[in-house]
Amino acid sequence: MYDCVIIGGGPGGVSAAIYAIRAGLKTLIVEKLGVGGQIASSDLIENYPGFPSISGGGLMKSFEEHVRGLGAEFKFAEVKSIEDAGNVKVIHTGEGDIETRALIISTGAEPKKIGVKGEDEFIGRGISTCATCDGPFYRNKAIAVIGGGDTAVKESIYLSKIASKIYHVHRRDRFRAEKILQDRLMSRENIEFLWKHAPLEVVGDQSGVTGLIVKQLETGEERKLAVDGVFMFVGIIPNTGFADVRKDEHGFIVTDERMRTSVPGIFAVGDCRVTPLRQVATAVGDGAIAATVAEEYISEMEGRAYPSRFVKP
Amino acid sequence: MYDCVIIGGGPGGVSAAIYAIRAGLKTLIVEKLGVGGQIASSDLIENYPGFPSISGGGLMKSFEEHVRGLGAEFKFAEVKSIEDAGNVKVIHTGEGDIETRALIISTGAEPKKIGVKGEDEFIGRGISTCATCDGPFYRNKAIAVIGGGDTAVKESIYLSKIASKIYHVHRRDRFRAEKILQDRLMSRENIEFLWKHAPLEVVGDQSGVTGLIVKQLETGEERKLAVDGVFMFVGIIPNTGFADVRKDEHGFIVTDERMRTSVPGIFAVGDCRVTPLRQVATAVGDGAIAATVAEEYISEMEGRAYPSRFVKP
Repeated sequence: MYDCVIIGGGPGGVSAAIYAIRAGLKTLIVEKLGVGGQIASSDLIENYPGFPSISGGGLMKSFEEHVRGLGAEFKFAEVKSIEDAGNVKVIHTGEGDIETRALIISTGAEPKKIGVKGEDEFIGRGISTCATCDGPFYRNKAIAVIGGGDTAVKESIYLSKIASKIYHVHRRDRFRAEKILQDRLMSRENIEFLWKHAPLEVVGDQSGVTGLIVKQLETGEERKLAVDGVFMFVGIIPNTGFADVRKDEHGFIVTDERMRTSVPGIFAVGDCRVTPLRQVATAVGDGAIAATVAEEYISEMEGRAYPSRFVKP
Repeated sequence: MYDCVIIGGGPGGVSAAIYAIRAGLKTLIVEKLGVGGQIASSDLIENYPGFPSISGGGLMKSFEEHVRGLGAEFKFAEVKSIEDAGNVKVIHTGEGDIETRALIISTGAEPKKIGVKGEDEFIGRGISTCATCDGPFYRNKAIAVIGGGDTAVKESIYLSKIASKIYHVHRRDRFRAEKILQDRLMSRENIEFLWKHAPLEVVGDQSGVTGLIVKQLETGEERKLAVDGVFMFVGIIPNTGFADVRKDEHGFIVTDERMRTSVPGIFAVGDCRVTPLRQVATAVGDGAIAATVAEEYISEMEGRAYPSRFVKP
């Protein structure tokens, strides 16, 4: 029986593990592949305070060393489902069951793909799904933005203050985003809107992206935009299918400010929860809070009896 | 006119500055003394993910280098008061007024002192005011805990899982903490309660703290406790006197999850706000969110007229 099991070894999960282990909790990190999460595949991170410029892989290597130095225990397995048996949570994995008193979900989220040529080749090398993360790398450069929802419009506004020129590409003749955001975007002078256009191919070379080929959907006319970066905002999908806790309409887990989900003893941190910002800096804060509150939760339950089926000799 | 002024150069303020500058905002950090905040005086930090073990000063040096590398502007001055003039905030300092569109308060909080002999000498070298931060340094050692409120009792529970023995010293014959917390504390077996005792002196040598001298308040009897650490939980005071925003009864600034205070355009991050946990890891998350939301706030106001008294040629 563990005190605290953390599902997912990204920034939020590692931070939670650091705090849980230091609090004296018997802690396990369950991870599908390797430590690092989504961020490990990022080329360059310049906004995690203390590391002016580092690769995602390099940053997560330092996170992994940190938590391993504290004696962290890892299990590499895929989580199928979790079961709330009151004071005990059971985690069903492809490699057997795990029992724990507190459970922290930090399974992250994955950006949706558009499915255009060049997408897999240039992701992280000119294709980005996060303006806050990568926008500043395109100061005074031309970029393309793809998408029509709130996020796409907000991020395009953000990027318009950094990039010299934005081609905002959208399949339809209007945005889905709320009116006030649209008005704000329309007032920016360095944005050219390509309505009823679809991206066909991201092109580039050794150095990264050099352009985006788009097609006008009514005329079929193709055009190559000379851009150094392509920002795709077509949604992100949280990895929360296995968890039976309250979620929003997109599957993000709802928590309070203490990272508590709708099920006592189950916490969620980082990208997989409903949160105003998805960054390494915010995930580590979430993790620290979740582990500290988990420790309080366990202190509170100590002395209570476990459900009989879980009593071990 | 700045886009974003940040008052306080601790972890939350520096993180906010990193995000604000990267977002293209004209940003200024106003700091009373030097960059770093409260944490800079900490001997050893082992729970900021990515830095397994570093001094507070060392960590904040890397934060300062990070933000200076982005071209951060600093002003060293004491803030007297802030004035909300709608779309413009005016910061009155000992070195003149500063105008900004968005304002982020990250002025931290200071632990109250008890006023015993040895306190100034051993703070950070055996005297601690944060169990989460420093508790793990006392694994299997004897420590003293001072205080009778919720925090003192919670932190004593936390520490009881790490230290081999705790002397919990309190002036009165009962705790002020809520009953459920007291019950939890009383159930721990490695805690000796010294009711009606007051601390007289923290003693030690080159290596740090070696003991705490306490006095029984009724009999006057003195006793020397052999401990390696003394944890003092007698309250912390936020540095928020200059700010006319909504606060709780202790002076901590109330924010929503986007770090917005009761005054539009004024944000608060880190130790000075009402928050479940006060750590470097949580402050950097707060800072990232505040700067990102401040950028949205400014995008929103762009195009609005400034109040006439602030119009500059």
